[in-house]
Formats: sequence, structure tokens, C-alpha cells
Amino acid sequence: MASIAILGYGVVGTGTAELINKNKERFKKITGEELKLSNILVRNIEKHKEKKNSKILTDNFDHILKSPVDIIVEVMGGVNPAYKYVKKALTSKKHVVTANKDLMAEHGKELLDLAYENGVTLNFEASVGGGIPILKPLMECLTGNEIVSIKAILNGTTNLMLSKMYNENMNYEEALKIAQDLGFAEANPDSDVLGYDAARKLSILSTIAYDKKVNWKDVHIQGITDIDADDFKYAKANGYNIKLLAISKKEDDGIFASVQPVIVDKNSELSKIENEVNAIVIKGDAVGDVVFSGKGAGMFPTASAVFGDIADIIQNKNKRSIKFNNENANIQKLYNYKSSWLIRLKTTDKIDTMCNLTGSFKNCHIFKNDLNPQNEVIAIIKEETENDLNCKLKNLEASKHVQHIKKFLHIK
Amino acid sequence: MASIAILGYGVVGTGTAELINKNKERFKKITGEELKLSNILVRNIEKHKEKKNSKILTDNFDHILKSPVDIIVEVMGGVNPAYKYVKKALTSKKHVVTANKDLMAEHGKELLDLAYENGVTLNFEASVGGGIPILKPLMECLTGNEIVSIKAILNGTTNLMLSKMYNENMNYEEALKIAQDLGFAEANPDSDVLGYDAARKLSILSTIAYDKKVNWKDVHIQGITDIDADDFKYAKANGYNIKLLAISKKEDDGIFASVQPVIVDKNSELSKIENEVNAIVIKGDAVGDVVFSGKGAGMFPTASAVFGDIADIIQNKNKRSIKFNNENANIQKLYNYKSSWLIRLKTTDKIDTMCNLTGSFKNCHIFKNDLNPQNEVIAIIKEETENDLNCKLKNLEASKHVQHIKKFLHIK
Repeated sequence: MASIAILGYGVVGTGTAELINKNKERFKKITGEELKLSNILVRNIEKHKEKKNSKILTDNFDHILKSPVDIIVEVMGGVNPAYKYVKKALTSKKHVVTANKDLMAEHGKELLDLAYENGVTLNFEASVGGGIPILKPLMECLTGNEIVSIKAILNGTTNLMLSKMYNENMNYEEALKIAQDLGFAEANPDSDVLGYDAARKLSILSTIAYDKKVNWKDVHIQGITDIDADDFKYAKANGYNIKLLAISKKEDDGIFASVQPVIVDKNSELSKIENEVNAIVIKGDAVGDVVFSGKGAGMFPTASAVFGDIADIIQNKNKRSIKFNNENANIQKLYNYKSSWLIRLKTTDKIDTMCNLTGSFKNCHIFKNDLNPQNEVIAIIKEETENDLNCKLKNLEASKHVQHIKKFLHIK
Repeated sequence: MASIAILGYGVVGTGTAELINKNKERFKKITGEELKLSNILVRNIEKHKEKKNSKILTDNFDHILKSPVDIIVEVMGGVNPAYKYVKKALTSKKHVVTANKDLMAEHGKELLDLAYENGVTLNFEASVGGGIPILKPLMECLTGNEIVSIKAILNGTTNLMLSKMYNENMNYEEALKIAQDLGFAEANPDSDVLGYDAARKLSILSTIAYDKKVNWKDVHIQGITDIDADDFKYAKANGYNIKLLAISKKEDDGIFASVQPVIVDKNSELSKIENEVNAIVIKGDAVGDVVFSGKGAGMFPTASAVFGDIADIIQNKNKRSIKFNNENANIQKLYNYKSSWLIRLKTTDKIDTMCNLTGSFKNCHIFKNDLNPQNEVIAIIKEETENDLNCKLKNLEASKHVQHIKKFLHIK
């Protein structure tokens, strides 16, 4: 019998408890193992008294630790007190399953080491891509590959907002309100809209993929707070869509890692990933591009990943956790591959700015006047690395007419 | 140290040998385990003498069995003699990895039982979807789900042909020639174009997903040999594309399973899966739709999956193989869900046939005359189950004017 305790009884905790109870019989039939939900840790027992499983609620973590529990499932979210509990659980030789990307991005290395030292497993499939099977396929199925790059939509809230802006011509504020009304965005949406959530998930994926520590704070992070309806207007006019992409690429002497809004072809695979759906494109040197997509959040999708991790621990008792490499990756923040860029320059002298643009860039397509507003020049620039582009734009910005420059990377 | 023998030195065998040699060092660093390629079985040693690894070639399978090999990789393809070799390997308590869908669709149940009885593992990730991680995610990551349905493009050759017919308006013969010239289709392409290959893969996926034996010969199989350029013309006129889809669905009292050309919306996810790429959409009751896509065949994509299976055996020494359920599924061959259908009726009296059509079907949209050829009526019929549709079409076929009816299911 496998005895399981859940820390946290919010959306994911409720889904996990339900899935454990629902799958008991089938799981026993397939594996011969019995699942027992033994405890659920909550801060305030009173608050959850009307829910199912009220008899196994506790507000005492040490009580759980001292009980004969085999697996502790941490679905509280946030770094504290999850960090303290998971550390205690691992040193007490309990297997741990967590859905917590903040925790894994911040303390993954230490916790995996702790699991290893104590001969137990720490699984965290749900921390990236919600219900999408991605970490196990990456670690186990694709192990014969050197991973070349990752391109992903990892945050459902911002993808929902951008979908609304693209499909329904909403502005940023309208899209945020919809996301909040639908329960996707928090009252304080910073972690999503500033790109932090996606960067944390990218750091977990990349640390595994390249076997180098990719600290999320070293990733170039640009959120979507600056995106307006005009950006979509100009993107659409060129057959593009705008997506918040998390990208990493193995380079000779480091790893490029960034989260930023990029333009993608409107008929591309990633453009079709809409609303709260997540997608991860992994390129391996042997397998080529492999795409995984599905619901990146929500009660049952996340619980599905948590349950898979629980089953994994029960069925592979002798498996040891993976470790994160402690060697820091040399992180590159500039996209130094010849690429296309969409540029918007606010200017008080359009003619002068246009001349400067065409003078600076060999391959520059300036938008026709009917799309160009009075005080702005919009252009597509091709075949430039970010470094060269930045240098030339800096020169343009030095002109007394140019007031503001906005740029979007184009990813194929 | 893990000693590995490969049976077969064709495309996949060559890729597997190369991947084993390439990954030796990295694998040892991560897992502490050494990989050793000990033997490669070929029919004719002379023929392969100029290749790499020529020193470890053998034409004697029993010699391999008697050697201290741990894992036998079967990449010969076809049922015989692979079946005999894999059986012998398992009863000799060797772990087996196979990429062979014919073998697994035909004898999977018996071979997995044999592996179980002998306490060894039989892994077969590469048998479905080539390099795409699909069987392990389905069996392990999604184990908390009841699988509701599978929709998939599982045959790269036919998908390439249909892509050429859609994108370049080729007819069937031109598309087949291209597929043969590119090395995707065999000189005898029957197994691909008749849908057998896709049906075998669907049977493996469905047997795992629904835990009931889905015999591939019980699946409703319709290939693409009957698809012509006009089908694409009419499909396109309605914003549709045509794909060879492998579909299975859990029903109350059985499993619907079919391989057939269906029409899909041109902007749908599956329509965008082009050329030799495969895609599998799995719907779980907890996770919702999860999509996996990537290269479904080829030297290194397939070797990538084989290598993942080898690593799995080495790292999970105590894991036992899954078993296929011996209980036959009650297979439904008709799509008895209210759906749309594209219908082509060859007729000697268009007016009479149109009247009969609109009389028979409540929701019937007949194409405008400029698309309708002289001797044909084309229509979209909505909200009909296949059973009802067939009954009504049978009545129409009884009319002396109607000579031939062709129908396509529309899948959203």
C-alpha cells in the first residue's frame, strides 16, 4: 500500500485528492498497489470542513512527517512555506511530488540533491506545462539526443490575453480583465504578464535539457505589459501573430535564454496555440522537432501530471531522482542569429527617419503610408543579429527626431 | 556495463548503432553506466563489410543469445524472423527493445506475457510515431486518466502524399511517385496506402489506452488509393483538407476504431501536420486534449526512440513490462456520432438526385453548379450518424440514376 499526504487543499489539491480516489480501483488492478490518501495539510481546518475528505485534514505538518506516509504531494504553490516542508519531507526520507515551479526554479538543485542523498524521489512534472507530459519525455524518451533548442508557450494567462488581442482586437486592459474574470489571471497578475512565470518554467526545462544550471533570474525577460492594439494591427498586416515565447538555444559557449513577445507567422504551429493552451517544441539532434501541447494549468490537467508522478514513484521504487547540474550556464541574452524584426519608431520627422532607416539597413521594408500613422515609421528588417540591430537602432535613437523605438523578434 | 546487440543493420539499425556510440560518454556521465555495442546480426556479413562496426557483425543469432548480452534491439522489421528471434531472446531472459509495429500489432500480447514471465522488459516506443515520445507518456504520465479518444496521423508516407495533393494539386499517381522518389514509399506501397500500417499502430495505441485488446484486423480500414484530385477540389472549396486519420473512441459497450481519409478544417491542428510528420491527439478525462507531434519515421528519429527504450531498461532494472489485456474489445466500425459528411454522387440525372438528396436529409447543402461537374452531385450533409447516413445513401443508390457514392467523414 502507498500512503499519500497532500500539502494544500486549493484547486490542484482538490483535483489530486479526487483523482487519487477515482483511480484507486483501476490502479490496483493494473499495478497490484493500493493507494491511500492519508492526510491533507491545510492552514485552517475550519475553512475546509465542508469539503470531501474533511476527516483527514490536519494543520500539523510534523504530524504528517511522523505518520507512516510514503509520498508527500506539495501543491501549495509559492516558495514559502513549501520550501521548508519539502526539505523536511526529503530529509525524513519521504518521496515528494510537487507542482511548484517557483520552488523548483528557485531551489530545484538543492532539493534534488537532498532527494538523492536520502535515496528518495522528487518528481515535478506538473511544474512545467501543467497536464502536458514534458519533463519525463524530455529526461527519459529523448535521452539519446543532444537538445539543440526549446521554443515554448509556457504561460496560459498571457497566451489567453494575446489570443483575445489577436482574435477580438481587444486592447491590453480589456484582455487582462477577461483573463481575470475567467479566473486565469490573479488580482496581481505581475508574475504572469511580466514573464516571470514563463522564465521560471523555461529555466527548469533548460536546466534539464542542457545539463547546465539556467538560473531564471539570468534569463532575458520581457513581459507583455507593453503590447498594444497597434502592435497587433501592424503584425497582422504582415501575416503575423504575436506570442509570448520562452526560447532557449544551445550555443558554442553558452545558452541563449529569453522570454519575450515575438512575432510568428499566422499559419505557424505556435500561432495556432490559443487561449490557455501551452505548447513546447523541443529540437533534438537525432529526433528533430517534437511538439507537445495541451492544457498548461487547471484543476484536473495539473492533477493528471501529479498523479503520473505518484504512479511513477510507486512503480519504480528503486529509481533515484535526477540531479540538476550546479555548473552555471553562460547565459546569452541577445538573439545573435540573422533574423527578421518588426520595428516601430516614434518620430517627429518621418521622412528623415525613413531615410536613416533605409540607410542603416540593407534589407528594410517600410510599411505603406496608409498603415503608417502620422508620428510613426513601421518597418520589417531582415537578416540582422540582435547585436547589430541594437547598435544601428541606438544610432537612430540619437537623432533628435526619434523619440521611441519598439522591436519584435520574428521567429519562424 | 550494459551490453547491447542489434538485430538488423538497415536504416534504423545503422542509426541506433551510431546513437549508442555517440552517447556513450554522456550516458556514463549522467547514469554511471557504460554502454557496449557487442553484436550486430545481419543475414549476409559480406554485404555490410564496408560499414562501421564491421568487426562485430554476425550471422548467427544463437551466438548472440549465448553471449553475455543484456539487451537485444530488434530493428529488422516484418513479422518473420523477428518474431522467432524476439521470443527466443525473451525466454533466454534478455531484455528486448523493438521498433517493429507489425510484430507488436500481431504478437504484442504473447511477447509482453513472455517478457513478464521471464522477468525482463520488452519496450517498443519506436513502433508508434517513430521519434515522438508517445507510448511512455501514455502509459506513465497519463495513467491518472481514463482515455476517451485518440485521433492521429500515424503514417508519414500517406501524409506526405496527401500534403502534395493538397498543396501542389497533384493527383494520386504523381504524389505516390514523389513519395517513392523521396524514399518514403516502398516499391510496393500497399501497407501504407491501404491503411494497414496506420491500423497496426492504432491497434497498439488503443490496446494500451483502453486496456482491451484491439486487434488491428478488426479495425475499419480504408486507405487513400481511392482519393483523387477532385476530392481535394471539393474539400478545398469548403475550407477543408483531407487527412488519413486513425481514430479510436471509448464507447459504452465497445471501442470505435477506424483508419480512413477524413476531411478536417484547413486551419485545424491536424491539417497543419504536413509531409512525413506524425501527430497524435490523446483525450484524457482529466487532462483534456494532449497533442504529440514530430517525425514519425527516419533513421535518427526512430533511433532516438530506440535509445530512450534502452536507457529506460538500464536505469529501471526492476521495472516489469506492461501487459496487453487479452480480453478482446468489442470494436465498432461505424462512426455513430452526429457528424458532417462530404458526399459525391455520380448520377445520370442531377435534378432527380438533388431532389432525392434534399428529400432524404434535413441538413443538406448542395454545391453550387459552377463547382458541380455534369455527372455528379456534391453535398455537405450535417448532423447524421454513419448508420443513418448509410441507410439513406443505400436508398439513393437504389435509384437507377445514381451510379456511385463516395463519402468523407468530417472531424473537427
